[in-house]
Amino acid sequence: MNKEMILEKQKQAVEILKEKDIEMWMIFVRESGNINDPMMDMLVGTNCTWQSAFIITKAGQTIAIVGSLEIANMKLVGTFQRIEGYLKHVKDKLLEVLDEFKPNKIAINFSRNSTLADGLTHGMYLELMEHLDKTPYKERLISSEEIVAALRGRKSDKEIQIMKEAITETLKIFDQVTEYLKPGISEKEVAQFVHKIVEEKGFGLAWDKDYCPSVFTGPDTAGAHAGPTDKKIEPGHVINMDFGIKYKGYCSDIQRTWYVLKPGEVKAPDVVQRGFDVIKDSITQSAAAIKPGKQGCEIDDIARGYIVNSGYEEYPHALGHQLGRVAHDGGALLSPRWERYGNLPYLPLEENQVFTIEPRLTIDGYGIATIEEEVVITKDGCEFITPRQEQLYLVKS
Amino acid sequence: MNKEMILEKQKQAVEILKEKDIEMWMIFVRESGNINDPMMDMLVGTNCTWQSAFIITKAGQTIAIVGSLEIANMKLVGTFQRIEGYLKHVKDKLLEVLDEFKPNKIAINFSRNSTLADGLTHGMYLELMEHLDKTPYKERLISSEEIVAALRGRKSDKEIQIMKEAITETLKIFDQVTEYLKPGISEKEVAQFVHKIVEEKGFGLAWDKDYCPSVFTGPDTAGAHAGPTDKKIEPGHVINMDFGIKYKGYCSDIQRTWYVLKPGEVKAPDVVQRGFDVIKDSITQSAAAIKPGKQGCEIDDIARGYIVNSGYEEYPHALGHQLGRVAHDGGALLSPRWERYGNLPYLPLEENQVFTIEPRLTIDGYGIATIEEEVVITKDGCEFITPRQEQLYLVKS
Repeated sequence: MNKEMILEKQKQAVEILKEKDIEMWMIFVRESGNINDPMMDMLVGTNCTWQSAFIITKAGQTIAIVGSLEIANMKLVGTFQRIEGYLKHVKDKLLEVLDEFKPNKIAINFSRNSTLADGLTHGMYLELMEHLDKTPYKERLISSEEIVAALRGRKSDKEIQIMKEAITETLKIFDQVTEYLKPGISEKEVAQFVHKIVEEKGFGLAWDKDYCPSVFTGPDTAGAHAGPTDKKIEPGHVINMDFGIKYKGYCSDIQRTWYVLKPGEVKAPDVVQRGFDVIKDSITQSAAAIKPGKQGCEIDDIARGYIVNSGYEEYPHALGHQLGRVAHDGGALLSPRWERYGNLPYLPLEENQVFTIEPRLTIDGYGIATIEEEVVITKDGCEFITPRQEQLYLVKS
Repeated sequence: MNKEMILEKQKQAVEILKEKDIEMWMIFVRESGNINDPMMDMLVGTNCTWQSAFIITKAGQTIAIVGSLEIANMKLVGTFQRIEGYLKHVKDKLLEVLDEFKPNKIAINFSRNSTLADGLTHGMYLELMEHLDKTPYKERLISSEEIVAALRGRKSDKEIQIMKEAITETLKIFDQVTEYLKPGISEKEVAQFVHKIVEEKGFGLAWDKDYCPSVFTGPDTAGAHAGPTDKKIEPGHVINMDFGIKYKGYCSDIQRTWYVLKPGEVKAPDVVQRGFDVIKDSITQSAAAIKPGKQGCEIDDIARGYIVNSGYEEYPHALGHQLGRVAHDGGALLSPRWERYGNLPYLPLEENQVFTIEPRLTIDGYGIATIEEEVVITKDGCEFITPRQEQLYLVKS
């Protein structure tokens, strides 16, 4: 992430601290190159080796406490106003800074609900508790999950612009895949074709290379979150692909569905077309209900209910997630009220959050139909930032 | 990491569980693509989205408990014998497996001392405590740090072989740099030259691109753990470079020192040569003391003492660290008894651990002299696996 965007996000963080009346936010980490705290990239822009604290205050100060050997690097990176070094033990310097500010609340990087606010390891939590022992600060720690959800969720105009560019580039690759698909090609070959283009263009992938893209052809496929196999495309298959790139630090995440015509066919069988249409309509209906203040579970209800009422099984995942610098970003989630999602289905939606909408259904004997679009929440609704898949794509045999 | 090597490390893990009489080891993670547990790559070979438990038992079973949508992927990856899926909540399935084995000790992924054993976030720790509430297992949790230290530290022949190949490839790049260096070239240009070669050869970097390589020319440089700057090489500079590649999943980490001859000079000034020799001799002396059972701090004492007694300031870091799939690997550390290193300076050294030895000193008015070599610990001593830098490299003006 470049320095200018880091400073912009820090400024936004200060506004959020004011809004929530939290005096100090501290990211406490070590060896952040090995164990990544997801906020380091957005707010610090480099890694640290020894126990380090990256502090943002409601009054707008930014203070980094790092091992003395890393002072020079922090200065070069230039994202923190004040840099404090220590040689043997972080504790004294940390307490010195806390005593200077005497914060009544310190938001730190742990959360039961949100992975992105949960970069503090348990070992580091125990270390921090010892550093703060017999100080008043121990009792003033709170989770930073609300701050992180707001900061990652509320996209600036610049962030949304980059995400739109990422979508354009991604859909160009989908178009190339449409040209490439034909019977006899395996799922793995499709993935290799995509990887080659991504490499040539110098993009990153939005998630693990092993299943970015995921490619599924025909009935009885491995299901989402699995890698492509040696299974070959055949006439009569429904094919779907889940794919996103990392572009200027931001992710896209899109799914499209194809049907492979059998000899003599000029359109997909009705049962395939119907599956596609149900997915498309479930997206239209759920998107129409999105607006600030709604809960994600209410939106998931709509698509899930429509698909089940249309006679299909419910999808075994959330309807959609936020998207940003990582593919599963932000706090609020368009998900069912399952315990595995914690409090995320209940968080109110906010303006400028970017969500995927990605229902799924099985067309028996043909394959899986999925469409994944991206929307940005507006003042009183949402807008699609992906040009929608309106038609089932047809592949000739 | 390929499947064969993962299965080899799992087998080694079972031996370590037997040796330490621990019935179960569990890595508990979620969204491991965003927050990386450093053991996932070595033992699982893929990532998970929802709360997941990766279990290895003393009896040799491997069990993965994952969100149902990720069962297919775990099967494809093929590294775990038994795969259990859940739809809404991990708790029931987790307790079912624990009740089946009734382990008297469960090592989990947290540690105050070792980052590599500390992949459990505090939020996930709180989740786990709730899952285990009112069960006997809550009281049976221990840190996996001893297992992790043994497993990552004790390298197999195959691992050492790969690490030697990585060294050979790295030193070829150092040789190209020796040819390339000349007055007028900036630290950044040297780094770009190195990056170009690394990219062409398809290697990875051993740590963050921003400071891999680190390049320092002349007096008053930014110091270790900082990125290269626009500072230009001049006659009379001591130059040093810290650089490593990631090769077949394993890291190298090497430093070399050059002197830039002034017009008319045919060798370095005595004061420069002496600084280089003190560094070289401090490596020889400390390496001579390395053997299984010694503590890292005893080894650090030797080099640190020798350098200080030779009239230089002590280096503000550890003498050396373990190396493996990450650049700072394993448990035991060749470090001083500073609190920031926790218990790592006191852990006994073991056979087949690979360590760097990397003292540093400042030659006033010229620059920093550093040499970093790699050694593997043998039954009764250690062997250098880097061909040593015996001579100060000279750059002509």
